[in-house]
Amino acid sequence: MSGTLDARPKVGYFYSGKPDINLISQEIKGIKVKDIMSIPVVVTEDMSVYNAIVTMFLEDTSSIYVVSDGSLVGVISRKDFLKNAIGTIDINKVPVAMIMTRMPNIATTSPEEDVLVAASKIVEHEVDSLPVVEKVMRHEKQKLKVVGKISKSNMTKLLVELCKE
Amino acid sequence: MSGTLDARPKVGYFYSGKPDINLISQEIKGIKVKDIMSIPVVVTEDMSVYNAIVTMFLEDTSSIYVVSDGSLVGVISRKDFLKNAIGTIDINKVPVAMIMTRMPNIATTSPEEDVLVAASKIVEHEVDSLPVVEKVMRHEKQKLKVVGKISKSNMTKLLVELCKE
Repeated sequence: MSGTLDARPKVGYFYSGKPDINLISQEIKGIKVKDIMSIPVVVTEDMSVYNAIVTMFLEDTSSIYVVSDGSLVGVISRKDFLKNAIGTIDINKVPVAMIMTRMPNIATTSPEEDVLVAASKIVEHEVDSLPVVEKVMRHEKQKLKVVGKISKSNMTKLLVELCKE
Repeated sequence: MSGTLDARPKVGYFYSGKPDINLISQEIKGIKVKDIMSIPVVVTEDMSVYNAIVTMFLEDTSSIYVVSDGSLVGVISRKDFLKNAIGTIDINKVPVAMIMTRMPNIATTSPEEDVLVAASKIVEHEVDSLPVVEKVMRHEKQKLKVVGKISKSNMTKLLVELCKE
C-alpha cells in the first residue's frame, strides 16, 4: 500500500500550506460509526484474567468488552491487563470483573454517530477503542447492547482509505 | 471536544454519498510526519523487561524503542510485554534485548515522509506506532537515529484536528 502511494505521480497536486478544513469536514462528516466499525470481542465477568488475556491474543484485539446478561458492564484494555499481569494477583483465579473499568466510566458510541465525534471521544478519553452500543430495555431498565467496536486502528485505516485513488 | 462537534450547527453542510477523494487527498498530502510526530520513549537493551514495563506506564506510551550506541536496534509493544509478563521468564532479570523486535524487522518512517505513507505502513504492518528515524553514519556504517514516534493516536488526533473549525 505504501508502495502505491510512493509510486503515485503527483499530477494536479497542490498544497496551500493551510488545509481547507471545511472541504475535509464536509467529506468526512457523512461517515457514520456503523460504516467502519469492527466486530467486538466480548467475555463474561466471571472469566479469569489469564483466560481473557489469552482471548485477547487469539482474537488479536487491543480491548475486550465485558457483558452480563447481554449488557455492557465493563471494558479491559491491554494496559489494564499488563498492569495486573506484573502485579501480585493470581491471574488464573481473579475474574475480569475485579480489574475492568465499569459503567458509568466507559466512553461509548452508537452506530449512527459521526466517526468524527467518535474520534474526538477516543482522543479526549485517551482510550484505544469505544464499544459501539445500542440502548435496549431489559426488565424495565435501560441497558447497553454491544454491537461493535471502533478503535484508533479504524481511524488510521479511514485516513488511508479516504485518500486512496 | 465532542461537545464542540455536537453543538456545531450544520450550516452549509452537504454530503454527496461519495467523498471526493481527490480533494481530501490534496489537503492531507502536504502534511509531513515531522508536523504531527510525538517524543519517543527510548531505553537501552540491557534494561530489564520489568523496568521497561514500569517506564511504559510512567511515560504513558504504547511502544518503547531500544537503542544501542544511539542507534535504533529494537521495538517493544505493549503486546510484546504482556505476552512475556504472563510467560515463564523472570521479567526482573531478562533484558529487553531478549523480547524486542529487531532490525531489519522494524517498520520505520522519516520526518519528511507524508503522514499518509506513514499511516499506510501502520495499517500494513499492523503496528501501533513507527519510530521516526534519520539516517546517520557511525564508524563507517549507516545507522538509524530515533528522532520521534508516530502512532495510531497521532492519526486519530489528525483526523479530529483536520475537521475542527
